Amino acid sequence: MNVEIVTIGDELLLGFTIDTNAAHLARQLAAIGVQITRRQTCGDSASEIASAVREALDRTGAVITTGGLGPTSDDMTKESIAAIFGRAMERHEAIIDALKARWKSWGRSGELPLSNYQQAMIPAGARILNNGHGTAPGIWLEDARGRWVAMLPGVPREMRGMLADELLPLVRARVTGEPQVVVSRTLRTTGVGESAIADQLGLLAKSPEGVSLSYLPGWEGVDLRLTSRGRNAADATAALERAGSALLQIVGPATYGEGDTDLAAVVLAALREQGLMLAVAESCTGGLLGERLTAIPGSSDVMLGGVIAYANGIKERLLYVDAEVLRQNGAVSEAVAREMAAGAARATAADVAISITGIAGPGGGSAEKPVGTVCFGLFVQGRIRSTRAVMIGDRDEIRRRAAQAALNLLRRALLEPAETDVSRIP
Amino acid sequence: MNVEIVTIGDELLLGFTIDTNAAHLARQLAAIGVQITRRQTCGDSASEIASAVREALDRTGAVITTGGLGPTSDDMTKESIAAIFGRAMERHEAIIDALKARWKSWGRSGELPLSNYQQAMIPAGARILNNGHGTAPGIWLEDARGRWVAMLPGVPREMRGMLADELLPLVRARVTGEPQVVVSRTLRTTGVGESAIADQLGLLAKSPEGVSLSYLPGWEGVDLRLTSRGRNAADATAALERAGSALLQIVGPATYGEGDTDLAAVVLAALREQGLMLAVAESCTGGLLGERLTAIPGSSDVMLGGVIAYANGIKERLLYVDAEVLRQNGAVSEAVAREMAAGAARATAADVAISITGIAGPGGGSAEKPVGTVCFGLFVQGRIRSTRAVMIGDRDEIRRRAAQAALNLLRRALLEPAETDVSRIP
Repeated sequence: MNVEIVTIGDELLLGFTIDTNAAHLARQLAAIGVQITRRQTCGDSASEIASAVREALDRTGAVITTGGLGPTSDDMTKESIAAIFGRAMERHEAIIDALKARWKSWGRSGELPLSNYQQAMIPAGARILNNGHGTAPGIWLEDARGRWVAMLPGVPREMRGMLADELLPLVRARVTGEPQVVVSRTLRTTGVGESAIADQLGLLAKSPEGVSLSYLPGWEGVDLRLTSRGRNAADATAALERAGSALLQIVGPATYGEGDTDLAAVVLAALREQGLMLAVAESCTGGLLGERLTAIPGSSDVMLGGVIAYANGIKERLLYVDAEVLRQNGAVSEAVAREMAAGAARATAADVAISITGIAGPGGGSAEKPVGTVCFGLFVQGRIRSTRAVMIGDRDEIRRRAAQAALNLLRRALLEPAETDVSRIP
Repeated sequence: MNVEIVTIGDELLLGFTIDTNAAHLARQLAAIGVQITRRQTCGDSASEIASAVREALDRTGAVITTGGLGPTSDDMTKESIAAIFGRAMERHEAIIDALKARWKSWGRSGELPLSNYQQAMIPAGARILNNGHGTAPGIWLEDARGRWVAMLPGVPREMRGMLADELLPLVRARVTGEPQVVVSRTLRTTGVGESAIADQLGLLAKSPEGVSLSYLPGWEGVDLRLTSRGRNAADATAALERAGSALLQIVGPATYGEGDTDLAAVVLAALREQGLMLAVAESCTGGLLGERLTAIPGSSDVMLGGVIAYANGIKERLLYVDAEVLRQNGAVSEAVAREMAAGAARATAADVAISITGIAGPGGGSAEKPVGTVCFGLFVQGRIRSTRAVMIGDRDEIRRRAAQAALNLLRRALLEPAETDVSRIP
């Protein structure tokens, strides 16, 4: 089954709003075997909506729109598309009753505003798609030849809920035969570069087990996305399973999770498992590492906190860094990183402490210590190690990469203590 | 002048990549008086590209594409569009020479890969758009009737550079008569809710000085976006100037900047101006406030650092919070927030210190202190104040709103010390 998507709204067309609905729709539909062949965006103009939808219908006979279902005069999706199908608009009293009940439950005073009555106007013969997260109902309109348009709201939360609850079941029921699905699986790696991974994978680098492999490098590391196309759902799952296992055999040590796993959550789980309490000592990252760890709900049972030692004076006062060590080695040095980690453990009585001190730029670099130079110290129950790396990117990226590398040092120290070679930071 | 945009790529169509290029193009073109009438996205298929571009050309005679200019077999934008114009592909030796020079300058060994030669194939009679940020040249193709297609690369950084350097000047030269532009100006407010702002604005709430006003609420506050349409560039600038002034007269105290100003930068500038050094004490935000302050280049001349006091033990050990005050009031209390701020100043010798302690959730709330309850302490040269608020949203949003509210307390204390009513946190 081929479907086109039409997203509607001046804000989208003018670029004031980034269109995330289209991507979400495409992924969800591909996963049930529907192919998106094209998508369009048009403004809040009745004639533009009508021509975009009519042209899409002529190509595929199946169209999903988002936006233009609200109560204001800008919202003309329903009328424009009803006209294509030659349908009149009818008022549904049940929708007005539901809107009035909602209005009351919100504790609003007075009558339901007149503009809301517009939301109860539905094309004759249409099927209503319930909106569990807002007021605008969605609409399914179909002609005698089986050509259909589904109209969803533009607010992403409402659109996503209605898609899952109402539209996907309707569409799935129309996919005839055994659908060919597009499904992905993502392995998250960090600490190893894109080309090094490809080299390690060798013959598997392009298309392991007949599924395609994409390399998605970013500040968190390199995500490896496996995508199966042209298989039924069961075969796709099996192929992704085989391909994932083949990859893991080779890039296992660099892999910290799947999907949208956060490395900070992996580290917290390992600490919890081993009954260890953590502290951080941050210079150039200024709190970013602490922020990532405490972003995970429940982190308080292993995360004590730490020190943002941005100025050298704070490194001395709160982390017991020796003024002479600072003077001789500079703040960005493995010697200072070690003292910071040890000092954080001493100040907080933590079992494990990690420190970061580096040059995030744009200023402050030198030939010996260029912008991006970052030193890390790691304290684990009395044992102290350190390492040094040069991160690429701008200030923001250097800081993000440094925090991620610190988390990866923790991960490896906790999960592969024997093998951890702390020099293997990217 | 009406233009359509066609963005090309399977990754876009399948929803694996969010299309940010289309929004950027639309904003940049609207600002020089070009109207985007529709945009389309199609996959890496020669026939789909050809039909999407041909249909767009038939409607407007002017089309901009992004994507599909790379060196691989997926990249078929040039050939598909050359075919619409009936042009053959020609090899440009100058492009090959430039690619070879680049290859050498990267320190790569061996010969330029054969796939790169594909990038030197250009439709006959086309104008080449230089790529200052990558290898794929852009293309401007035009027929005898003046209908044109401009092809830009899909990598956002390359696309933006080529648009600014090469394409916008070409398009601007073709806008005849006095162009009607769409231009925006955004005032950033925080600490006051959307409906409170609308109430304050009264008659100005909808369309001050004849320009439209949009309310964009988020965790940073409410951005007020003024948009002028249907005026020439000079009139648009003047109308936005008048509207901005009218708004500022009313919402001035809540306004911290324009465009993409970061409140952290405003606070750092005020501290610098007054020669004051800052420290932070963070519990529920776990480093987020420090991260925001140190994200600004040059922050080290006023930001000392601080303490991430996530566990109560750290509040006692590093911030001198009294165990009895903690026991009696609980960690989330104004009493503890005051001690945290004073303790941060004492520990770091800062002139100004701000503390945050709250319940970010999802767990930990009670009837008296629901999830979202956050207490703030503010130390300014020996004077200590505190306040309390309830933030809305999930864990992430509560933390972001808390850090922003802390920055706003600092802003008001530094810039309007006489008027600061610290109870006015949203």
